[in-house]
Amino acid sequence: MKFKAIVTVMLKKSVLDPQGAAVERALKSHGRSGLQSVRIGKVVELVLEGPDQKTVEDQAARWADQLLANPVMENYTVRVEPCS
Amino acid sequence: MKFKAIVTVMLKKSVLDPQGAAVERALKSHGRSGLQSVRIGKVVELVLEGPDQKTVEDQAARWADQLLANPVMENYTVRVEPCS
Repeated sequence: MKFKAIVTVMLKKSVLDPQGAAVERALKSHGRSGLQSVRIGKVVELVLEGPDQKTVEDQAARWADQLLANPVMENYTVRVEPCS
Repeated sequence: MKFKAIVTVMLKKSVLDPQGAAVERALKSHGRSGLQSVRIGKVVELVLEGPDQKTVEDQAARWADQLLANPVMENYTVRVEPCS
């Protein structure tokens, strides 16, 4: 069965995010009010075959931990959904 | 009231994604089986003040369209949730 695993990787709160800070400044300089903070991360969409959702979730989490994210400075979340 | 708006920006399907292709090759060369495709995008987390969820959604969608995404080659989705 085919699944889509969505791995979202964000810098940890304690790590400075210059890209987010730049976007925040840009939005504010365009007069966007009410904005408090901006953080930028990356999202990795994997399409993969697997026997069931649980197995695919475990596999995607392993990949995220070992290859897609740097656990020293990044947090990640994994969401798996059946592929339409 | 404080909300978190999560804007996910992905390259359109018709646009080549060399970063995703590189990650796909890397995962496959590590012997990861069952993988069919990888696409990489970015996620922008905005914390902002607003009167209600609908207003914040509209505002975040406008920012995404005008500043955060390039509608020529990227698609975006906006999700707004109350900030805890």
